[in-house]
Amino acid sequence: MDIEGFRKAGYQAIDRICDYYYSLQKLPVVAQVQPGYLAKVYHTRLDALAAPQREQSGIQLDEQPSMHRAGDGRDGLGGETLGLGDHFMNSSAEGGGVIQTTASEACIVVCVAARSLYMRQHPDAKLEELVIYTTSQTHSLGVKAGLVLGLEVRIIDVKAEDDFALRGEALRTTLETDVGKGKRPFIIIATVGTTSSGAVDRLGEIGEVLKEYPSVWLHVDAAWAGVTMACPEYRGTARLEDINKFATSFGTNFHKWGLINFDASMLWVRNRKHLTDALDVTPEILRSQQHIAGVVIDYRNWHLGLGRRFRSLKVWFVLRSYGVEGFRKHIREGIALNEYFASLLRDFPDISIVTPPSFALTVFRLVPCGSWDHSAPITEELLNMLNRAFYARLSARSDILLTQTVLNGMFCVRFAVGATRTTVEHIDIAWEIIKEEALIALKDSELKVDSSQGVI
Amino acid sequence: MDIEGFRKAGYQAIDRICDYYYSLQKLPVVAQVQPGYLAKVYHTRLDALAAPQREQSGIQLDEQPSMHRAGDGRDGLGGETLGLGDHFMNSSAEGGGVIQTTASEACIVVCVAARSLYMRQHPDAKLEELVIYTTSQTHSLGVKAGLVLGLEVRIIDVKAEDDFALRGEALRTTLETDVGKGKRPFIIIATVGTTSSGAVDRLGEIGEVLKEYPSVWLHVDAAWAGVTMACPEYRGTARLEDINKFATSFGTNFHKWGLINFDASMLWVRNRKHLTDALDVTPEILRSQQHIAGVVIDYRNWHLGLGRRFRSLKVWFVLRSYGVEGFRKHIREGIALNEYFASLLRDFPDISIVTPPSFALTVFRLVPCGSWDHSAPITEELLNMLNRAFYARLSARSDILLTQTVLNGMFCVRFAVGATRTTVEHIDIAWEIIKEEALIALKDSELKVDSSQGVI
Repeated sequence: MDIEGFRKAGYQAIDRICDYYYSLQKLPVVAQVQPGYLAKVYHTRLDALAAPQREQSGIQLDEQPSMHRAGDGRDGLGGETLGLGDHFMNSSAEGGGVIQTTASEACIVVCVAARSLYMRQHPDAKLEELVIYTTSQTHSLGVKAGLVLGLEVRIIDVKAEDDFALRGEALRTTLETDVGKGKRPFIIIATVGTTSSGAVDRLGEIGEVLKEYPSVWLHVDAAWAGVTMACPEYRGTARLEDINKFATSFGTNFHKWGLINFDASMLWVRNRKHLTDALDVTPEILRSQQHIAGVVIDYRNWHLGLGRRFRSLKVWFVLRSYGVEGFRKHIREGIALNEYFASLLRDFPDISIVTPPSFALTVFRLVPCGSWDHSAPITEELLNMLNRAFYARLSARSDILLTQTVLNGMFCVRFAVGATRTTVEHIDIAWEIIKEEALIALKDSELKVDSSQGVI
Repeated sequence: MDIEGFRKAGYQAIDRICDYYYSLQKLPVVAQVQPGYLAKVYHTRLDALAAPQREQSGIQLDEQPSMHRAGDGRDGLGGETLGLGDHFMNSSAEGGGVIQTTASEACIVVCVAARSLYMRQHPDAKLEELVIYTTSQTHSLGVKAGLVLGLEVRIIDVKAEDDFALRGEALRTTLETDVGKGKRPFIIIATVGTTSSGAVDRLGEIGEVLKEYPSVWLHVDAAWAGVTMACPEYRGTARLEDINKFATSFGTNFHKWGLINFDASMLWVRNRKHLTDALDVTPEILRSQQHIAGVVIDYRNWHLGLGRRFRSLKVWFVLRSYGVEGFRKHIREGIALNEYFASLLRDFPDISIVTPPSFALTVFRLVPCGSWDHSAPITEELLNMLNRAFYARLSARSDILLTQTVLNGMFCVRFAVGATRTTVEHIDIAWEIIKEEALIALKDSELKVDSSQGVI
């Protein structure tokens, strides 16, 4: 949809809201449909069952489901597009999907469910013995879940030689040591596409280790990179098969790289009962016949708060507007542009790509191996000082926005593609800016090294 | 603003979005303002400092603050309108306000902060000893906070003769008993305007009792009724003075009765450091100069998730559109309409108002004292069966939506006013429907009692 198409659709949306208010008095107060009606409509209209394969001309929504509370959180829309197994779908009647506010809240939710399940299975356990497992590359959502729940978080170190991914052996050793000390592992948060460097934990190895620890919940956080699974060719890299085989829960944010505005954090679980067993509070005042009969899914028992917004509509709008092929094109373009960016870096001798480009992310730093010619050797400390100066120069500019990270002590710069309108020209412009600042930073550091013999 | 005014403003908003996309390429990537700029603008433009007293003609937003992350969550807008003390405002540099997603999430947040504070003060405490206090009338958010955090929740019974409000004496007795058993009270969730019946806990008495328990955090949940404090004449009923004197934190939902669309759940705390001490995770990647210097408030350390939406803008739009006087008018009209409704009930002999009408809520049930003339006495059980049948009739209709509640065993019907467009005519129509169904329910029950001698 182009800008003028958006203007037309936007005016129509405003008109519909006005029509609604003009007719409000004549509308019934209570919805005239029964819970479950929308699923039936979907199943009889195959073209609406899944996200359309191609872009729809204009946006139409034949069945406006906003009057129907239980219509929220259509897990099939996103889940089928990503290739998730049927056992994660609401239609399985055992697993299910729900839109959470953020990946961090999804992480808290699964930690609550896992803790609750563990405590039911081990009534003698003390909360003080429970441990959440993450790696040094896990997003701070892991540490935050520990802070919120007041539980211990064990951060497992990962190695540069493994591209900062968690290996089965490191997990096994840590679990054995901790269990030996009386600790009780109950959940591990693995990552597909870490924030720092796009690392993908070795889910197959992790799954094999966890066979010996059946009480440990495996949550796979793919907040940023999960959307790549919409493209069949990236499902291997994103370890979809292992996710379907081993993950107890899986989450990805459609609001990061997935075209949908914040917030649309998708969470799927293998067993929805683990959520409701942990979180269901249904006071008399909110009970309905359908709830009692189990016909309605009450999503408030699937997340932290009790109220929720109707977010699935915007997911539907975007998938309908782009179509699955359009969505894939967006992902593929992001990855192609990042590959192009990485190819530019490779031609610049004083820049080192720190980890292999992952999806649409490249992590790099200045390593003046080509032109460095001083009496002082290049220590890691000097490199970090050089790169901090380089990044400070980039940060002072208003025409580019990059972020920093530290990978096992190495200060690095992150370059991520993901915006809808980014083209080759934007990459070229970005590269010119980066090169310009790199050359100045390198020159500055040489002057400083020359004048002070090694101390920048 | 009328419907055509909305249409005009809506078109303008769509046009602005289109203009934004047309000019996107020319805009700087990084915000051209420094953190704190908005507060300075506000302080130099007194007309924009507080919510306007009168409705603004058209909606204008001179300083569009969306580029400025720290501009989110303007606590002053709502807090000053409600009459909260300065010590709850961000400007106090000690307290502060933040928009949370729901009152239930706000409740989890304060429980986390209170637990974290308690555990720092009592390093020998075990999580298993901690207790959250609520009453039998507290919203299920209290029980849910306990489920999420895995902590014990003590539900204190309240009495019909106290209009279902928590009294100081009941709290004192419960605390003494629990502490005697080795329990560790760390937070009490009191309510101003319970969901069931609009009860207002006796905050003054509670505050006095808590002087003997300085480690117990007092959270006041006024999710529904807090907005009445915008009107000076209801501040006494809503116990504003006690809130300002005793509450450690206070929350109200502007998305319930406060004209703002879900979600806009306001939370104020007396000491913001208690939130950040409990929740701050700032990884290297997200650090900024301003954060390090303490200039920027990072609201992600004030709530459960790490991301957040920019919700203060809609609060600002609504308060600017209505003005404080317009906002008060809306609240006053709701309360007046409820008083009118209650007066209609009082003229109907077989209906009993169960608790005094509270703000815009009336709780009632059928008590056929006038016309009941059977051999079977009216037991509580029979009354509940009668009222369940009455409510079932009301629920089967599509032209009215009422909710049920159970107050110390009494099944009751709730009538709440709060929608923007409700008028006297709507109350009259509702009353005709309620009367019609009441008469049928009463007649049906007489027939059943007659035919089966006491068993409805």
